[in-house]
Amino acid sequence: MLKFLTDDFLLSNDTAKALYHTYAKDKPIIDYHCHIDPKEIFEDRRFENLAQVWLGGDHYKWRIMRSNGVDEYYITGEAPDREKFQKFSETLPRAIGNPMYHWCHLELKNYFGYEGVLNGDTAQQVWDLAKDKLQNDASMSARGLILKSNVMMVGTTDDPCSDLKWHKALREEDFAVSVCPSFRPDPALNIHKEGFKDYIKKLSVAVGFEIATLDDVKKALSNRIEYFDQNGCRASDHGLDYVMYRQASDSEINAIFKNALAGKPINKEQSEVYQTALLLHCAKEYKKHDWVMQLHFSCMRNPNTKMLETLGPDTGFDCIAVTDSCEATYKVMDALERENALPKTILYSLNPADDEWIDTLIGAFQSSQIAGKIQHGSAWWFNDNKVGMQNQLTSLANLSILGNFVGMLTDSRSFLSYARHEYFRRILCNLIGTWIENGEYPSDIEFAGSLVEDVCTYNAKRYFNL
Amino acid sequence: MLKFLTDDFLLSNDTAKALYHTYAKDKPIIDYHCHIDPKEIFEDRRFENLAQVWLGGDHYKWRIMRSNGVDEYYITGEAPDREKFQKFSETLPRAIGNPMYHWCHLELKNYFGYEGVLNGDTAQQVWDLAKDKLQNDASMSARGLILKSNVMMVGTTDDPCSDLKWHKALREEDFAVSVCPSFRPDPALNIHKEGFKDYIKKLSVAVGFEIATLDDVKKALSNRIEYFDQNGCRASDHGLDYVMYRQASDSEINAIFKNALAGKPINKEQSEVYQTALLLHCAKEYKKHDWVMQLHFSCMRNPNTKMLETLGPDTGFDCIAVTDSCEATYKVMDALERENALPKTILYSLNPADDEWIDTLIGAFQSSQIAGKIQHGSAWWFNDNKVGMQNQLTSLANLSILGNFVGMLTDSRSFLSYARHEYFRRILCNLIGTWIENGEYPSDIEFAGSLVEDVCTYNAKRYFNL
Amino acid sequence: MLKFLTDDFLLSNDTAKALYHTYAKDKPIIDYHCHIDPKEIFEDRRFENLAQVWLGGDHYKWRIMRSNGVDEYYITGEAPDREKFQKFSETLPRAIGNPMYHWCHLELKNYFGYEGVLNGDTAQQVWDLAKDKLQNDASMSARGLILKSNVMMVGTTDDPCSDLKWHKALREEDFAVSVCPSFRPDPALNIHKEGFKDYIKKLSVAVGFEIATLDDVKKALSNRIEYFDQNGCRASDHGLDYVMYRQASDSEINAIFKNALAGKPINKEQSEVYQTALLLHCAKEYKKHDWVMQLHFSCMRNPNTKMLETLGPDTGFDCIAVTDSCEATYKVMDALERENALPKTILYSLNPADDEWIDTLIGAFQSSQIAGKIQHGSAWWFNDNKVGMQNQLTSLANLSILGNFVGMLTDSRSFLSYARHEYFRRILCNLIGTWIENGEYPSDIEFAGSLVEDVCTYNAKRYFNL
Repeated sequence: MLKFLTDDFLLSNDTAKALYHTYAKDKPIIDYHCHIDPKEIFEDRRFENLAQVWLGGDHYKWRIMRSNGVDEYYITGEAPDREKFQKFSETLPRAIGNPMYHWCHLELKNYFGYEGVLNGDTAQQVWDLAKDKLQNDASMSARGLILKSNVMMVGTTDDPCSDLKWHKALREEDFAVSVCPSFRPDPALNIHKEGFKDYIKKLSVAVGFEIATLDDVKKALSNRIEYFDQNGCRASDHGLDYVMYRQASDSEINAIFKNALAGKPINKEQSEVYQTALLLHCAKEYKKHDWVMQLHFSCMRNPNTKMLETLGPDTGFDCIAVTDSCEATYKVMDALERENALPKTILYSLNPADDEWIDTLIGAFQSSQIAGKIQHGSAWWFNDNKVGMQNQLTSLANLSILGNFVGMLTDSRSFLSYARHEYFRRILCNLIGTWIENGEYPSDIEFAGSLVEDVCTYNAKRYFNL
Repeated sequence: MLKFLTDDFLLSNDTAKALYHTYAKDKPIIDYHCHIDPKEIFEDRRFENLAQVWLGGDHYKWRIMRSNGVDEYYITGEAPDREKFQKFSETLPRAIGNPMYHWCHLELKNYFGYEGVLNGDTAQQVWDLAKDKLQNDASMSARGLILKSNVMMVGTTDDPCSDLKWHKALREEDFAVSVCPSFRPDPALNIHKEGFKDYIKKLSVAVGFEIATLDDVKKALSNRIEYFDQNGCRASDHGLDYVMYRQASDSEINAIFKNALAGKPINKEQSEVYQTALLLHCAKEYKKHDWVMQLHFSCMRNPNTKMLETLGPDTGFDCIAVTDSCEATYKVMDALERENALPKTILYSLNPADDEWIDTLIGAFQSSQIAGKIQHGSAWWFNDNKVGMQNQLTSLANLSILGNFVGMLTDSRSFLSYARHEYFRRILCNLIGTWIENGEYPSDIEFAGSLVEDVCTYNAKRYFNL
Repeated sequence: MLKFLTDDFLLSNDTAKALYHTYAKDKPIIDYHCHIDPKEIFEDRRFENLAQVWLGGDHYKWRIMRSNGVDEYYITGEAPDREKFQKFSETLPRAIGNPMYHWCHLELKNYFGYEGVLNGDTAQQVWDLAKDKLQNDASMSARGLILKSNVMMVGTTDDPCSDLKWHKALREEDFAVSVCPSFRPDPALNIHKEGFKDYIKKLSVAVGFEIATLDDVKKALSNRIEYFDQNGCRASDHGLDYVMYRQASDSEINAIFKNALAGKPINKEQSEVYQTALLLHCAKEYKKHDWVMQLHFSCMRNPNTKMLETLGPDTGFDCIAVTDSCEATYKVMDALERENALPKTILYSLNPADDEWIDTLIGAFQSSQIAGKIQHGSAWWFNDNKVGMQNQLTSLANLSILGNFVGMLTDSRSFLSYARHEYFRRILCNLIGTWIENGEYPSDIEFAGSLVEDVCTYNAKRYFNL
């Protein structure tokens, strides 16, 4: 190959190329989990320059700049956009092997038509070209970028208290792409974290009744789930530091809840029984509405408290955690399955060492309700690099049925991140193509192509009832 | 390559091919650990159709069908054999990359002469062909399959109470293949599990004396080990949820044992001290008889209690567990070595993340008694796929001496599973062949071939005193 | 390739070859962490034969001989050197895939000009050749070997009580290579281990005042750090079984310390609070002196107590441990960063399953003080094989900035081990070369070459203030 980022990028043989170009490339994208703001879609937001698009909120990029010794002034500080972009452009080439190198260049190629290399020397040229495009090309708005990316569905991440007005407005406008909310009730579960009490008040306002007991908070969440369901929601999302399973009687949990509302301190065990109870309650509701439950875990949030105090959360300091989630995850699944209340579930661990046990766990809770009812989510966050994706796909194939996988999601805040679906698809096609070329699977391109199409689009379409 | 499952399947270069075809392919199989029923060998059981052979008891296959959304009716239910086979045949092609895809096609090729692909469309053809062979070809009986697989020894898995009558009968008949029992005393160690009391009664009957104390149960196991030894046993096997090491005085353990016999509840600590004591006792006996001790651990048994209640254990729901076994394993080994009572030992973890520490641990307890006295077992259960085997072999090579490895075992209940030895050998030869082709090992095929022969057959022959 | 150990060993494509031969091969070696005795450098020690060089103290080699069933008589026993060498030569070919196979042959090629294969048959020839060279070639002394290896700096590992007289003497002699001490205060931290009390006495003598309180021991270490700094020290090194973080008041810790001096037993919690306090104290001092703090963890020391009693520590029995170090490491880093007292830090875990969380952790504590302030150390000890290095480099590239990596160190006691830098560099160049050949990075060899040079030499030069 040698030439960088050609049409056959990451495709190392003819079968891989045939699979990608014929079956994967043009399939619609179902981006069922991301952090895009629906308001920005509704208002069809535009961007002034590449610093705004890339460096405005992408903490992946902040992180890599910090690793290059760049001063915070150029990262989250007051430096002019052009200077920030310069620092980033000087950093990027040193990040050889980092997926960000690929993502950035795929975005430059796909959205800006730039096929060169970005570095300190070319930064000005790229800056000018992107600025011109962003300001003058009508299709470079939020909606334009979604449409030109061939996106069929966008799954946002929403607070249970949200009125979902931007989702409603988009539906009323008949925007060609489904923009569906996802239900993320973390603040109602995080009884041990600051702000819990205030959040329960906010939730109380949203549902229109006082929340004073465990039953109240369950009812409130059920109400909001119902509301979300009426507004097109098909999935929930839980961000757990770790998976826990600790039982207690309802009266005990109620007492804990009341203590929390009274501002009393909550210890770890108390927090765990409350969270367990609420997670199980929510899961049962998801099951009733045929939603998908997503569990994200093993993340170390805010390990650098000095920077947390300076910049707040979600600013590029979170990390992989090693947690004791294995046994608890089995217990959560089992507790739900015993009551026939286990919803479709996708499990994501931030620790790639968890791949294999997750891939066996999902096999213990499948059902004839739907093929692939329990899923191992695509390589998440730090792991969505070439090796992480290959490993997740290979482990899934070894231990389960790759052909039933619901595939990629961006988990992103950016309208350019759809390039990551391309990245995933190239890696998927290369994996399958290599198996076929090596004589490890029959050379039936049509059938292999149909599996690729399923993983790219159709499994997710079916799984999320689109 | 491109053509599926050729003679050079998984062999990516000329050295790999030479090693496999010249040194590996025709070496006798020593299947030192499996779950075949010796009665079926003695009675030379025959099978009516492929559903009986493949779907009668193979929970790997049940599991994969469930992952495809197949109803239990077609898996363990009342559906006719032909319909079950149809559902399986429709599932298999979706399991691209799964070792079962390879095993099934290797079995169809090697035992039925079918070189096509199995899927929903070809199911009838394969069904007819296999049925005809199974019913009409004299060599397709249990013994016939063993013989045509070039098996030298079969190591079954047996209850300490077993009278080993089928093993005796086979020896008296001079069946050309050694069928040796293995001693699996799990029920005598599982003081915390249901049925313990009854098992001790059963053991009491087997040894002909009452078992009322810790000393009694130790003596009973020693007696049975002696009996097994006289009947050709060369190995034991322990299935541990996790490895534990917890000490207590004999009088404390005796009290715990008596409580268990009296039906009183046993907590985790009590269970651990009893199990530790019994494991150490058995190990010392194995050492006396120059047996091999096999420890299997980090398995999550029966996580889905609803299905456990419906179908019982060993029905395709077990999973990989993450356990705290590392430190305890060191302590068990050390406690035995301190008393010069450490037997030849093979360690198997179901969690592939354990590969590296196991490969260093074994290096800390080797001895001049025999080369490779302490072994890291071949990639076990969920891990016996191409990647899992490559990783186990590579880690073993990196951290120990690959040339002393005792190699593959099927761990299977089926008479067709010897194809997994072929699978292993191809992967082994490809690994070594690739090193040689890459200039990482001298191109001395004769010597490399002798290492391959050792790993395929001769190390195990020596290790198990055959 | 096929031919073993050519000039293009491990370099699988033209770009890899160009990177290695043009940019990596001739770069000076900065061996910033090893266990060479500075006295041997000063005295310019010579060796009589290959057994002395290879088998005199290298427990890697002892370990591999034990794994081959060699009797201790030929390992650490009284056997004549020639016989020991014979046993080792017979063992080595069976260790196919083991990095020792490569290191030995690289050393034979680079230092003795032997391009053949070492095995039982060739042992005599190699023995004679090496003996002649060692005894008659003037450049085969300690200093000669260092000079011909193109070493720019040697970082030894030294006790805080050391007077560093050999380092001083070498500096006075203007030996062309910097031989810098490293500060390894383990015995002053290991309050729970035998010998602690005696060590504190020894430290007291070194500093010239009585050490009776926590403040005293802190002051003593600060003094020694100051002394080391004046004598060219730029780095410290901590060998921790696991990373811990447990807080207590100074008065509590002082009481624990006094108990230890009084010979009273110290439990795990007490040991942890003392160690935490001392580690934080030292770290702050390192920060003041702009030193690098190295933390090595997850090692299982001396698991085989029988052999520990026979041969003592560091004799080839240590292993990989699985520890709970993840959360504590975050806390240690955070505690220091909160006080702006976090020094440049390199983290090394012996458990390769820790690679990914370490590579994310380092990204949470970077700073504009220096690019790559927090580093994930090169694949350590058991992991410095081809796969381990590739994995460490790949994970680092995926999750951080490979271009800022400070690269390889030998961690060795031998003057021939510089071949491991060559091994590392070949693997590094092959990795980057393969990315370029695959079109995953632009084919700008000059820039890629500059990254290679940085990782080989210049990043470490900058990082250690050389």
